[in-house]
Amino acid sequence: MIELQQQLSFIIEIDQLKHVLRKSILVNGERVENSAEHSWHLAMMAMILQEHANEPVDVNRVIKQVLVHDIVEIDAGDTYAYDEDGHNDKEEREQQAAERLFGLLPGPQRDELMALWHEFEARETPEAKFANAIDRVMPLIHNIESNGTQWKKYRITRPQVEKRMAPVKEGSIALAKYVDDLLDQAVADGLLEAGQIPPPVSGGG
Amino acid sequence: MIELQQQLSFIIEIDQLKHVLRKSILVNGERVENSAEHSWHLAMMAMILQEHANEPVDVNRVIKQVLVHDIVEIDAGDTYAYDEDGHNDKEEREQQAAERLFGLLPGPQRDELMALWHEFEARETPEAKFANAIDRVMPLIHNIESNGTQWKKYRITRPQVEKRMAPVKEGSIALAKYVDDLLDQAVADGLLEAGQIPPPVSGGG
Repeated sequence: MIELQQQLSFIIEIDQLKHVLRKSILVNGERVENSAEHSWHLAMMAMILQEHANEPVDVNRVIKQVLVHDIVEIDAGDTYAYDEDGHNDKEEREQQAAERLFGLLPGPQRDELMALWHEFEARETPEAKFANAIDRVMPLIHNIESNGTQWKKYRITRPQVEKRMAPVKEGSIALAKYVDDLLDQAVADGLLEAGQIPPPVSGGG
Repeated sequence: MIELQQQLSFIIEIDQLKHVLRKSILVNGERVENSAEHSWHLAMMAMILQEHANEPVDVNRVIKQVLVHDIVEIDAGDTYAYDEDGHNDKEEREQQAAERLFGLLPGPQRDELMALWHEFEARETPEAKFANAIDRVMPLIHNIESNGTQWKKYRITRPQVEKRMAPVKEGSIALAKYVDDLLDQAVADGLLEAGQIPPPVSGGG
């Protein structure tokens, strides 16, 4: 019973993820998304799109990773994908958050959640590569479905989005191709600025 | 690519679950919960509390069931646990919703999600019994953490809550015992009305 109480304290604590707001606007345009509902949406995306992973994946492990991947934001906050300053100390803030939050659980479960989160962050296993791929694609879909509102607001350009999307191909070449087509269309439709095309790097010397 | 587009249409469609509002108030008291974030929270609860199931469960199947179990509410709406009229045509409304929503997917995936949802609703397998147990306990925790606001508002009594909690013991006797203790405390703290204790049924006839 003591273990059950400890576990329920964790369950109650993570209710706060429902108050961590992301930059993505929901498809109906009404409000921004929170990280709890985003995590649910990603878990569904993993179930539905698993066949498009580059390598066969254990979808159950992908689902667990995406369910857990944002819990650290309860303490560390959501860092906007295009906030370069925010990314400087992101790793340290999130590690501290993981220790406090997962540390509320009995030892073996603390270790299990910590391992899932580290695996997601490291992007080395097929499951983590695929989990990261869908985590990158989801906000792109939200941006397009909400007419590029956030891209326009923060004056995001296509090269910035492409840099952010670079890990998608590691998890799913099929999704990466789809993203390219979506970006062509988004620029053509005026949802996203084309941005400066970097000059070709001169060879030699 | 056509299959990927069809799958993404479903992913976009179910974004609407984030707008289906439940009666439960979040732990910090700020607002009611939506069904998408509730589904995420239940999936985490399944991961953390699986050892308390009466029978060994395939936790991955429990997780998938709870991720999927409320999607029908996009069309059918959330029916409040204590709304008896709403429950009269709930089954028919939800079946139609399942056919439309899961029907957006390629055939095998439509069948998979339909099967998960039917299994959850039937409460016959160990996984479905446990999934239903945590789905009943979660709003109780929210009610207690938010000082019984919704119980007071809708004048809910302990016998009504007990009736609603009856399936918990089918999935987890440990959780059912915990619920009993919580209800004792909730009545003692004035969060929940004790209600009328029904008179003993006279024997014979």
